Amino acid sequence: MHRGETYLNEHRDEHLQQLMELLRIPSISALSEHRADMRRAAEWLAAELRRIGLSRAEVMETGGHPLVYAERLDNPGGPTALIYGHYDVQPVDPLDLWATPPFEPEIRDGKLYARGASDDKGQVFMHLKVIEALLTVEGRLPVNIKLLIEGEEEIGSENLERFIAAHKDLLKADVVVISDTALYARGVPSLTYALRGLAALEVHVTGARGDLHSGAFGGAAPNAAQALVQLLATLHRPDGGVAVEGFYDQVRPLTQEERDGFAALGFDEERLKAELGVDALPGEPGYTALERLWARPTLEINGIFGGFQGEGTKTVIPARAGAKITCRLVPDQEPEQVLDVIEAHLTAHCPPGVKVEIRRMGGAPAAITPIDHPAIQAAMKALTEAYGAEARFIRTGGSIPIVGTFGAVLGAPCVLMGFGLEEENFHAPDEHFHLENFDLGMRALYRFWHYLAETMG
Amino acid sequence: MHRGETYLNEHRDEHLQQLMELLRIPSISALSEHRADMRRAAEWLAAELRRIGLSRAEVMETGGHPLVYAERLDNPGGPTALIYGHYDVQPVDPLDLWATPPFEPEIRDGKLYARGASDDKGQVFMHLKVIEALLTVEGRLPVNIKLLIEGEEEIGSENLERFIAAHKDLLKADVVVISDTALYARGVPSLTYALRGLAALEVHVTGARGDLHSGAFGGAAPNAAQALVQLLATLHRPDGGVAVEGFYDQVRPLTQEERDGFAALGFDEERLKAELGVDALPGEPGYTALERLWARPTLEINGIFGGFQGEGTKTVIPARAGAKITCRLVPDQEPEQVLDVIEAHLTAHCPPGVKVEIRRMGGAPAAITPIDHPAIQAAMKALTEAYGAEARFIRTGGSIPIVGTFGAVLGAPCVLMGFGLEEENFHAPDEHFHLENFDLGMRALYRFWHYLAETMG
Repeated sequence: MHRGETYLNEHRDEHLQQLMELLRIPSISALSEHRADMRRAAEWLAAELRRIGLSRAEVMETGGHPLVYAERLDNPGGPTALIYGHYDVQPVDPLDLWATPPFEPEIRDGKLYARGASDDKGQVFMHLKVIEALLTVEGRLPVNIKLLIEGEEEIGSENLERFIAAHKDLLKADVVVISDTALYARGVPSLTYALRGLAALEVHVTGARGDLHSGAFGGAAPNAAQALVQLLATLHRPDGGVAVEGFYDQVRPLTQEERDGFAALGFDEERLKAELGVDALPGEPGYTALERLWARPTLEINGIFGGFQGEGTKTVIPARAGAKITCRLVPDQEPEQVLDVIEAHLTAHCPPGVKVEIRRMGGAPAAITPIDHPAIQAAMKALTEAYGAEARFIRTGGSIPIVGTFGAVLGAPCVLMGFGLEEENFHAPDEHFHLENFDLGMRALYRFWHYLAETMG
Repeated sequence: MHRGETYLNEHRDEHLQQLMELLRIPSISALSEHRADMRRAAEWLAAELRRIGLSRAEVMETGGHPLVYAERLDNPGGPTALIYGHYDVQPVDPLDLWATPPFEPEIRDGKLYARGASDDKGQVFMHLKVIEALLTVEGRLPVNIKLLIEGEEEIGSENLERFIAAHKDLLKADVVVISDTALYARGVPSLTYALRGLAALEVHVTGARGDLHSGAFGGAAPNAAQALVQLLATLHRPDGGVAVEGFYDQVRPLTQEERDGFAALGFDEERLKAELGVDALPGEPGYTALERLWARPTLEINGIFGGFQGEGTKTVIPARAGAKITCRLVPDQEPEQVLDVIEAHLTAHCPPGVKVEIRRMGGAPAAITPIDHPAIQAAMKALTEAYGAEARFIRTGGSIPIVGTFGAVLGAPCVLMGFGLEEENFHAPDEHFHLENFDLGMRALYRFWHYLAETMG
């Protein structure tokens, strides 16, 4: 091990410069104007994978943004791990809230600031450098390794779903390793055993044929913004719970053991309030904040729009208004069932004079990983050693839709070794990555591959 | 009269070309990027007023956008009329809903399409051409005429309020004539005796310090868009009335005579539905649509915004969201009282975890004009003759904030001779002006100045 860590330490500056090069590519999958940037990021990764010694590394087509596939199979008959990550990033608006531009990486106070620094380019890059260290120092990899780095994680991974189904043999693996989650807290090594799922939709309300003068028509014409507001307000109960009939029907209740385990982590609600700058943590009644974050579903308005948004006043009755909504799902909610009940609710509550149109934007179920798998044990050991502290089992409130697919199509369990921190603004302005976890995380991954060869060899 | 009408007919094409030149100037008062265009429009009008023979015509400063003042006082001791209009126009978004660009005027099917065609450049221009016709054909004006053409009507006329107070002597007049309202319907000459007022505000909701990842924080962080929706939904009752306590306190009830008069106009609600393309005309219960449009106050969301509005999905919890709201007021509501009760309501209903900020954006009371004034009688006679049909007294749902000021500061009654039509999309895409009312309206105005000299001379 020692020589691997020494190699990573000695080349740290050079590696960070390389990572910044990758972060400078604005690979926003949601915006069609960045199509060429997406391909540029994929090509960059494929070239780097070839350079560090993968025997096969190529950009492959998916019908949408391309993905990068690479492999090095040094151990005939030995265990094979598939590393999954994504090179696409979230949109960056509102731009004016970034201290430095999202695609001009900068290190301040031991943190690397850039869109994608933590989610997920930074963590994907750690895998590349650990492989480079292993091949440089030891000349071979302890296990067979495949890499699958996609470009559509932030927009639902729909093409990847098809790609995996069509390339089962290529991707065949004994375990999938993903670094796209967060530690419980700084200095607390932790392995995530459950993820929330996702269901997304848009609501569009249409009133009159066009926008109307509020003097000429106000009082006798439907207002799409007003109708939207009335409609969306029915989605939650005054106590904070979701009011949609059937929304909680498929939710697997938390066991008392899980609730006790969460409580033992000593989650500090007052500190979260202070961090967010708020005086309350509103949500579903009857659960602690940590339970709501990790194991209860939500329905969030991600964006709302309609009518005049410019400077000053415009006395107009908007003809159209809309909202973007996503739900975080928990085991055993099915995305289609959740979208069905929301659509039924919105249709039933449509105010008079307007039309409501629902556009379904995809979804993915939640996931739970079996914690007795040898790969999980190898990961816990590597994490405990690298961080010098006992690793903990945690959940996360986020979603990695593809985790369910790996289980269903490849039959492979996922090991979620993530090195982000929840406060790193993944989808918001000033995204950053604590470099202590860049360093400790690579140390853990370097050890992990050796322990995996031992436990599964 | 005959020779005046002949002159206007003979020069019609040339006049329309001139009007289009004025309409091509994008004088949007609400947007600071159009500051230079505002001045250009004012200079254009001043130059044209000088050219047609006003003895004084100049651009004057107001502290905001400039105004145009002109006069020709041919009748010492005779009555003086002050013509008021505005050269500023509303913003033009959403641009993609215009059939032709808003500042590239085009005549289609006898209608002139452009932002400002009807509200109010087209109607201001009619006054200029009637004066030109009078001076060309008769060599003098039947009454003393002053013109005041401002550039801030669409943003609340605040600087004009101060200008009028500071220039009482300059503006002194026996009657104010305004062409900025609509006929009851095509072919129905009509004079507006009451206007609604206006009160405007913005609501801004702030949750956490910045936008948050909905996976990491969803379930235990306030969502500003969600809170905004809940808050705004409390402003109306399910039956369509305004739910704000005290909102209706100062409303002057309609008399039975007024309700009978409105009913006699035979307003066609089914036709309005068909025109707007809607299946209901939602609003306050207990009143006909026409009563709601003309004589009941409203509270409208003009715009709503917050979070991610781009293409695709972004799983973000918005930190900020807001809405633009305007109320149409009726006699005897005071704008400040209405803003007070709305602010109190919004503050009292603020959801947990967020902060609400109210920004007051100004207002103006409603107005009612005495219908027994000789100038009103002159106008009714001129309208009846020009259109060949009995002129009717009507109200309008729109607002001309400055009407109240003319009454209060100059002590002059307003004659509202407007030639627009409600369906002309004044504040919306595809604004247009029916040229039949350009022609008949100028014929009425030409006669009006002569009758005014008779009744008030």
